[in-house]
Amino acid sequence: MPSSALILLNRPSLSAASHRHDAPALTLFDPNSPVLSALDLSATRGDGIFETIGVGHGSPQALEHHLRRFTESARLLELPAPDIEVWRKAIAASIGAIDPEAEAAVKIVLSRGVEGDNRPTGWAYASATPDYTAERVDGIAVITLDRGYRHDVEITSPWLLAGAKTLSYAVNRSVLREAARHGADDVIFVSSDGFVLEGPSSTVVYRVGESILTPGPRLGILDGTTQASIFRCAESLGLETGLAKPTPVDLGIADAVWLVSSVRLAAPVMRLDGLDIPVDRELTAQLNAFLLAVRE
Amino acid sequence: MPSSALILLNRPSLSAASHRHDAPALTLFDPNSPVLSALDLSATRGDGIFETIGVGHGSPQALEHHLRRFTESARLLELPAPDIEVWRKAIAASIGAIDPEAEAAVKIVLSRGVEGDNRPTGWAYASATPDYTAERVDGIAVITLDRGYRHDVEITSPWLLAGAKTLSYAVNRSVLREAARHGADDVIFVSSDGFVLEGPSSTVVYRVGESILTPGPRLGILDGTTQASIFRCAESLGLETGLAKPTPVDLGIADAVWLVSSVRLAAPVMRLDGLDIPVDRELTAQLNAFLLAVRE
Repeated sequence: MPSSALILLNRPSLSAASHRHDAPALTLFDPNSPVLSALDLSATRGDGIFETIGVGHGSPQALEHHLRRFTESARLLELPAPDIEVWRKAIAASIGAIDPEAEAAVKIVLSRGVEGDNRPTGWAYASATPDYTAERVDGIAVITLDRGYRHDVEITSPWLLAGAKTLSYAVNRSVLREAARHGADDVIFVSSDGFVLEGPSSTVVYRVGESILTPGPRLGILDGTTQASIFRCAESLGLETGLAKPTPVDLGIADAVWLVSSVRLAAPVMRLDGLDIPVDRELTAQLNAFLLAVRE
Repeated sequence: MPSSALILLNRPSLSAASHRHDAPALTLFDPNSPVLSALDLSATRGDGIFETIGVGHGSPQALEHHLRRFTESARLLELPAPDIEVWRKAIAASIGAIDPEAEAAVKIVLSRGVEGDNRPTGWAYASATPDYTAERVDGIAVITLDRGYRHDVEITSPWLLAGAKTLSYAVNRSVLREAARHGADDVIFVSSDGFVLEGPSSTVVYRVGESILTPGPRLGILDGTTQASIFRCAESLGLETGLAKPTPVDLGIADAVWLVSSVRLAAPVMRLDGLDIPVDRELTAQLNAFLLAVRE
């Protein structure tokens, strides 16, 4: 079986609710074939949204949470509300077309469509993922970088789309090049007024004593799907969980820090801004075992 | 002749200098046909750059300035330096394929390419443009909106890519929806510390007495191609030109304010944040006549 598969959603199934009773036309495409117009607003304006969903044992992980967040991103960008049943079928069909043994991921994308057409474009892309064992066990080196925004822009300036998972990720990729220049693997964004936000494609989780904490609420960051799973795992282990408003100094003196995401899962931070910080190998292994097990 | 045309640049002509001696393969495509992979980083990450170049009487306007800015955006995003001669040919070929009578524009796009391929994707798209007479003569209603960034992020936080013309324009489009909710046509971004920046696709120019001013330098905004032409026009009319660091209050008490861009040209602001401001009809007409004349 192939290691990747692409499903394009036809336009009627993406838009009007009146089409709901029709079976959606889910067509399998060669992922390397040209399928998008050069006028698609995803390509010309980064004007759309996405989710990346981990796949374990052929099953999409934290699917309901991802679909809720996808719907919330659509709301923030004033895109037509995604027809969740259609997306559920597209996700299943793309996973069904690839090797079921591999650790994999599905990316779903909803674009505003071709400029002037007023009809969205959508696709689901399933692919095998790299081996992240080293990152999950030994950890990653991370630097903090200014995100430019105050911690409260979600409230004061909703047009900045903080908290939406948009296709406009040039900055999220630029900061990884900046990290590489410092010999680091990843980044933790800090607000212009000094609060820890999130990674460019991950959520910050940290341990202080018997408490597992994450930044929030209303800091203009994504509602972490993997972070939510980790909180459930931590609670099952008898740990407390909660929201906080940490600064980088709080992370530097924490008992452990992780960047958590749907594909790499829980990557312990072993160096922060050039200083070694403790890695909790036992808890990390428990968290990743939990995340690798089929859920939902 | 058609009203639009798409040229795809083949990959060799986009990358290595070693291919420079080969004639670039410039292929004309139906703009509505699928030409991009769903894995192209333009579509999945807004990871690329663009320019929109006005076309008058079949001639690209301010072409050298646009090509310089394109090169500078590539540098800020660490994309391979564009081969300017190839782009010049693509621009000419796309213009040559459309009706020469119409006011038109060419958009050029350089994407980082398909993820993992390490080869850029590029295209030039020429199309007839709408009739902007009303905007150029009667003016536009504008609101100011917080851009979230301090005025100095270009210096403190270059990874935010302020000053690069990237494909990650979801916010630039979101603010137009916010403007529409307030009955306005366009937006002037203000830094989080209160300085006037630019429009989402235009440069701010204003008149105080006999001086024509624009925000700068080093405010994390684009080096305006149309603004530069307007300064040349103003100087030929005996006006002084210069850079300034205005606040919205300075614009509110100016003798005239314009949003200037390559396609709409000089649009006088007739209302700012709900308050009428003076429109200098005579100077506006002179500026637009100058911009509509063939240059370069």
